[in-house]
Amino acid sequence: MLYEINEKVIALHNQGKPVINFNVGDPDQVTSPEIVNAAYKALIEGKTKYGSSAGAMKLRERLAELYNVNAENVIVTPGSKWAIYSILSLLLKDGGNVVVPSPHWSSYELIVKNVGAELRLLKGDLESNWAINLEKLKKMMDDQTRLIILNNPNNPTSKVLDRKNFQDIVELANERKIPILSDETYADISFKKVKSILDYDGDHILVNSFSKTFAMTGWRIGFAILDPELVQKMVKLNQITISNVPLFIQEAAIKALDLKDDISNEIREVYRRRADLACHLLSNTKLKFTKPDAPFYLFPKCDVDSEEFAFDLIDNGVAVVPGTAFGDYKKYFRISLTTPEDSIKIGLKKIAEAFT
Amino acid sequence: MLYEINEKVIALHNQGKPVINFNVGDPDQVTSPEIVNAAYKALIEGKTKYGSSAGAMKLRERLAELYNVNAENVIVTPGSKWAIYSILSLLLKDGGNVVVPSPHWSSYELIVKNVGAELRLLKGDLESNWAINLEKLKKMMDDQTRLIILNNPNNPTSKVLDRKNFQDIVELANERKIPILSDETYADISFKKVKSILDYDGDHILVNSFSKTFAMTGWRIGFAILDPELVQKMVKLNQITISNVPLFIQEAAIKALDLKDDISNEIREVYRRRADLACHLLSNTKLKFTKPDAPFYLFPKCDVDSEEFAFDLIDNGVAVVPGTAFGDYKKYFRISLTTPEDSIKIGLKKIAEAFT
Repeated sequence: MLYEINEKVIALHNQGKPVINFNVGDPDQVTSPEIVNAAYKALIEGKTKYGSSAGAMKLRERLAELYNVNAENVIVTPGSKWAIYSILSLLLKDGGNVVVPSPHWSSYELIVKNVGAELRLLKGDLESNWAINLEKLKKMMDDQTRLIILNNPNNPTSKVLDRKNFQDIVELANERKIPILSDETYADISFKKVKSILDYDGDHILVNSFSKTFAMTGWRIGFAILDPELVQKMVKLNQITISNVPLFIQEAAIKALDLKDDISNEIREVYRRRADLACHLLSNTKLKFTKPDAPFYLFPKCDVDSEEFAFDLIDNGVAVVPGTAFGDYKKYFRISLTTPEDSIKIGLKKIAEAFT
Repeated sequence: MLYEINEKVIALHNQGKPVINFNVGDPDQVTSPEIVNAAYKALIEGKTKYGSSAGAMKLRERLAELYNVNAENVIVTPGSKWAIYSILSLLLKDGGNVVVPSPHWSSYELIVKNVGAELRLLKGDLESNWAINLEKLKKMMDDQTRLIILNNPNNPTSKVLDRKNFQDIVELANERKIPILSDETYADISFKKVKSILDYDGDHILVNSFSKTFAMTGWRIGFAILDPELVQKMVKLNQITISNVPLFIQEAAIKALDLKDDISNEIREVYRRRADLACHLLSNTKLKFTKPDAPFYLFPKCDVDSEEFAFDLIDNGVAVVPGTAFGDYKKYFRISLTTPEDSIKIGLKKIAEAFT
């Protein structure tokens, strides 16, 4: 559904009809010049050759320091998506199932299916404030469950997992000896402090990315922190697939980490203002939603079929993604606040009008 | 074996004992400044966002023009290795076997095994001038054969497939309706003109890379030309794995194509001189080998166990790869001429001494 919407947007764009893109999770900010210059410097220095399939040691060490682990726990990947794909393909080689709280990023679903495993969606709802129901989770897990995927903060709800809820889930997972893959892509720019899976005991997996924290989506660089044995298996898979993330991109990532506080604070504040604005503009409508804890999304519930609504809305110059792209959420849609405030005002007013 | 050798080289390097690296197929040339500047220009222009999982249309169109196909036949990949991996994972989803003439690049073997297919190695030999034996190939193919992989010019022999031999193979494949994946990574810098698989009829697959032609190994960019239906399946796999090759890297690749004749001629001449020098330096030894048709390798046959020889040779300051890394070639080893002429002279003299 995400791709169908995207194609319609591109088709309209090519016809000279611009659309306000509330449909993609790609920040409108460009990457900082300091980061760009670090890549250029590395290129000039001849860092144009093969690198380690585990990532450059310098970057692995920086990330290890940041997360208080050892460098051998860290692997650098071409985007967090490749980390997720390769981990799932390794853990689910012999089948089994994966529990994913829903609504969920569609890639989890497609990856689980691609590697031939069973997907078990644990449906959450707005009325419970998007909490993960522990009793339902318990019932969903069995001796074939190989992994639980948490996305914290969540895409599309922008909800940060409640601490008690998170702790209960980790304890249950530890008890059953099932690893959690915690995708914390939005954590560093979250409005609320986010507990990392690494703050808890247990043999769990952290996945994160430079994409959202540093407006580096197109650079394709992310990382995972996990058991060194699994890191080694991922390295072997990297050797026969993607080889390595370009070294000059890894140098840019090191520079990004140098500037982490400044850049992430700036991005966080931009999106906090946008989230406040969006909540304000949609407050007197029939739409129901939780206030975002993090960038970039709003996931309102409406009283119509959101696929029909989304396709009609594009003709009115605004693109959103129907909730069905994130699970069984026909009456929800996702608004991505990744456009400047002026466009947000225009776009949200059109949405508000439709639900007043 | 390749990785074990590499690790020993790195260990010695870290001890301050430099080794002449005849073991890696990574050209010692750096990427041209014009290509580097094209990447920088794209970065400054903000080409730091998500791109198409099929590749940028501008680059696909350029490659289509170059190979006289349509843009919809072209997919841009993070290295030719990812193209090979994804094609094999798609074609061999339901099992089957792949025929690979040997000696062969070890990644083919590892990929075929990783995707759960059967590998059928067709052993060639120096005495037949590395020709592919058609009768043996015929016997090796059956109704479970899903693909034949050709590497032309070949790594490790640097042999260009004889035209008659190539044509016979294509005719046989067409007769049996089995696609050929032709990896032409070394074709554009070959000393001898190379026929492309696209010059023949049939539903075959071309894989190529910017790595060797433009000294861009670390940039991770390659491409495949194949049936649009399979391109679409690869795009879907890209969407849940690597997403896209960074747009600024694709802009650098477009610049590389602008400069293709100049850069490839220059690289070709450097390696032609090195190949001549190597043949000369090894001519009065007990080593037997065919004169390279292309960069970068020599694959001499010796009268000892080449694994033992290779490990001893590292202690003498020179790294080569034993033939066992390329199949059942215990008495062969690969010399990669990817170091400057001075080092080539020193390194090859040590090898010559061992076999005089």
